[in-house]
Parts: sequence; C-alpha cells; structure tokens
Amino acid sequence: MDKFFKLAVEEAIKGLSEGGIPVGSVLVHDQIVLGKGHNRRLQDGSVILHAEMDALENAGRLTENIYSECSLYTTLSPCVMCSGAILHYKIPRVIVGENKNFKGEEELLKSRGVRINVLQDPDCIKIMSDYIAANPKLWQEDIGIS
Amino acid sequence: MDKFFKLAVEEAIKGLSEGGIPVGSVLVHDQIVLGKGHNRRLQDGSVILHAEMDALENAGRLTENIYSECSLYTTLSPCVMCSGAILHYKIPRVIVGENKNFKGEEELLKSRGVRINVLQDPDCIKIMSDYIAANPKLWQEDIGIS
Repeated sequence: MDKFFKLAVEEAIKGLSEGGIPVGSVLVHDQIVLGKGHNRRLQDGSVILHAEMDALENAGRLTENIYSECSLYTTLSPCVMCSGAILHYKIPRVIVGENKNFKGEEELLKSRGVRINVLQDPDCIKIMSDYIAANPKLWQEDIGIS
Repeated sequence: MDKFFKLAVEEAIKGLSEGGIPVGSVLVHDQIVLGKGHNRRLQDGSVILHAEMDALENAGRLTENIYSECSLYTTLSPCVMCSGAILHYKIPRVIVGENKNFKGEEELLKSRGVRINVLQDPDCIKIMSDYIAANPKLWQEDIGIS
C-alpha cells in the first residue's frame, strides 16, 4: 500500500477510535506530508471538518505554487464541499480510497482538470460500510441528507 | 437595508477590526439567525474559515429539513469552496452583497437550483475594494491565486 494512502487510512481509524466518522485524509507535497486529518463532526461538533478539510486546515496557509504540486489522499470519495476546497486551492491530484459507499463530486473535479485515482481499497470499503450500517443517522447527517 | 444583510456587513467590519479580511456571513432560518461568521484566515491562520464556512460552523449541527429552509447572506460572492458547502447542505437561497471584486461560483449554484440574489451593495463593494487595494497579496492568498 502507498505509504501516504496508509496514513490516510490510519487517520480514518484514529477518527473511529475517537468515536468519530472514519474518514481520513493526507495532503502531500514532494513526498512530504504537509497535513493530516480526519472527520471531526462528532468529536468537535463541526459541520465543515470533513477529513479533507481537516487535512487542509492542519497543513496551514500555503501558496498557490505549493498547492498546485500537491496530492490529496482521502479514504472516501470527496463530497461537494471538499471538492470545492480542492478546486479552490487548485490541488491537481486526488487519490480516493473508495467510492462504493459514497460517490462525491468526482465528475466535477475531472471536468476542471483534477486527476482522480480511485483505489477501491477493500479495507476502506469495509471500515465505512460497517460504520454506516451501525450509524445510519450520523452518516446521513454528515452527507447532508438527514 | 435588510436586517440580516446588515448583520453580514457588520460581521465583515468586525473581521476588519480584528485585522482580518472583511467578508461576513449570516445563516438565517425562519427569520432567526442560526449562525454568524467572518473570514478568519489572518486571525486564526485558517484556510477553510471563509465567512460562509464560519457562519455554517457557528450554526452547528443542523438537520436537512432546517438547512433546506435557510438563507445564507454573504457580503461577497461565494468561492467554489463555500459554494460546495452551500450545495452540500442544500441551502436553497444565497443573498450576495456584491460580485464586482470577486465573482465566485454563482453559475454552478444556479445550475443546481440555488437562488442567488446579488445586491451590488455600494458599502460592500467599497470595503472589499479598499481592502484588496491595500492588501493585494493577502487577498490573492485567500482566493487561492498566490
């Protein structure tokens, strides 16, 4: 497994261990991790700290020339909010753990030139499907349908 | 001036008084303010707390049936990240102070059924144009082009 993707999965598991929704993300530039994060809805009562947003926030203020060379790893297909953040900062490449449990705005991202690589990682699929089965209401809230 | 739009302008001015980028936002449901916020890039070193995101975060966890009846007021046309958040939570109506200094993703929002009302408020235009003239680099960073 790609070492950066492995870190994103570790973030998802960390979130789960905190009682949170298990999605993790890592922002990488030139083989260096700039930021890691995981969904913080339940831990912080946050409606904006999806994993990708948390990773971006933890990376801090960066310049366009850095963002434009970054890859964002995420265990789950990015929703429209996170896709918007990816587009805002012109991150050119997104590595997605899976889109079986939720398919976000991959087409919007692609239409604007973002390269997407969906791994369909069995561990990611299982972590998320187990969580959704056990916590359907919380999951629906997180994706804005409850 | 609409009392909720006035609150959004007050949030922008509050941000400016804190040394921040002067954009403000208010989330309203059924004539009740659920959350107010302003851009917090400089105050908190945040790359995700644009005004609209701050207002949503300060409103806290809400259900779809509430979001779907909300109006979001913002002093400046929402960027793609904030537009993504608006779409994620299915907020049906956005009142925009102005889009002269920056035009965000109004077309994307409209294409997905969000109603947009752009006021072209002279005070909003002046606050933002004065700020951009005095702080071009910070402004460019905030919109992801520097």
